[in-house]
Amino acid sequence: MPLSPAQADKTLRRRREILRGASRVFRRRGLHATGMREIAAELDMHVGNLYYYFRNKQDLLAFCQQDALNGLLSRARAFRQEALRADTQLFKLIYAHVHLLNDELPASLAHLEVEALEPADRRSVLRQRDAYEELLRQTIGEGIQAGLFRQTDPKVASLAILGAVNWTVKWFRPGGPAKISEIARHFAEYLVTGLLAPGVEPAFPDSIELPILAEHPSLPTVQPQ
Amino acid sequence: MPLSPAQADKTLRRRREILRGASRVFRRRGLHATGMREIAAELDMHVGNLYYYFRNKQDLLAFCQQDALNGLLSRARAFRQEALRADTQLFKLIYAHVHLLNDELPASLAHLEVEALEPADRRSVLRQRDAYEELLRQTIGEGIQAGLFRQTDPKVASLAILGAVNWTVKWFRPGGPAKISEIARHFAEYLVTGLLAPGVEPAFPDSIELPILAEHPSLPTVQPQ
Repeated sequence: MPLSPAQADKTLRRRREILRGASRVFRRRGLHATGMREIAAELDMHVGNLYYYFRNKQDLLAFCQQDALNGLLSRARAFRQEALRADTQLFKLIYAHVHLLNDELPASLAHLEVEALEPADRRSVLRQRDAYEELLRQTIGEGIQAGLFRQTDPKVASLAILGAVNWTVKWFRPGGPAKISEIARHFAEYLVTGLLAPGVEPAFPDSIELPILAEHPSLPTVQPQ
Repeated sequence: MPLSPAQADKTLRRRREILRGASRVFRRRGLHATGMREIAAELDMHVGNLYYYFRNKQDLLAFCQQDALNGLLSRARAFRQEALRADTQLFKLIYAHVHLLNDELPASLAHLEVEALEPADRRSVLRQRDAYEELLRQTIGEGIQAGLFRQTDPKVASLAILGAVNWTVKWFRPGGPAKISEIARHFAEYLVTGLLAPGVEPAFPDSIELPILAEHPSLPTVQPQ
């Protein structure tokens, strides 16, 4: 029996809470030394209860990446609809990426491990990732066409950006002295400035409103058994 | 009985060859799904022969990271001795980093997995990594002091750089259409340009000579049994 929308929302919220707890264990023990038992212990859950939300650790890793990419993609699309200058658009995209991975959906190392997914999940994550990278390349390409950005290879530049922003989950510590909004702004300024054509005054936003992350009823959800 | 210098050199060369083969399997199967048996098969070695060079997979991962960090550190120190402008120095450092990880000592994902190391190896790798990051921060700090770079946080900038350059091992394919020297130059230009103070003309080298990677007799070497 399919879940009702209210049930699906509740399950999604709970799955995100579980990831948040799991990410604390991943940081302490490493991703691969951590099993479902340790994750359940961190959350004071019975492990049987954890299996209600995730079939296994692969399922948890896949959900983490799909949920994050859904959020990144929906925001990147929203920014593109705003018809901003390419430098402003790229700034917001980088800011939102760092913010989402480290504050809204923090799951630390679990975000990076495409290689650890089962083939079917890996394919779906790679499709989402390709779509996101394409938006990033388009934004850079439009900046070049508009004369805002230097002549450069949008593909190589976008891979440099993705490396810098994804790597933040390796070192950023939630609750530490650095605030994620400052890190995110710093990264956005640095990585957009490196692309500017000589003499261009960048248009960086003073404040950024991030669209609320949608609930994703289309995500595969474990059914009550 | 300690190895003679000639034996130690030969062992080191062989260990690097093994890593090169291992990295191909890591790309296909993922780092954590790959065992010593698959690595031996890729290299047409008996697995017992592989254990002569590496006690286990942890040992192989630790060697990979220590060997790479030794190379990165020795080059970063050599560049600092040349008393270059900070922008030139940073350019060379980024270029050399991308080149070493993807061409000279390619081991793909194995470079990134500090979390997968045993505590003792992890501590030694983190010490080397801290020393390397310190050189990077110093170079950026000197550029700011000299008025070549904008006022920025050298720590955050260096973490952005490290993310971008380390991430290359996730996507660069040796033997593919893109040449690593072009990627390395592209990264160096992009990541130094993002730091330049307004109006500064960067001093980027036309060609880069990389110091030959030293043999490292100080590295732990498995003894013949």
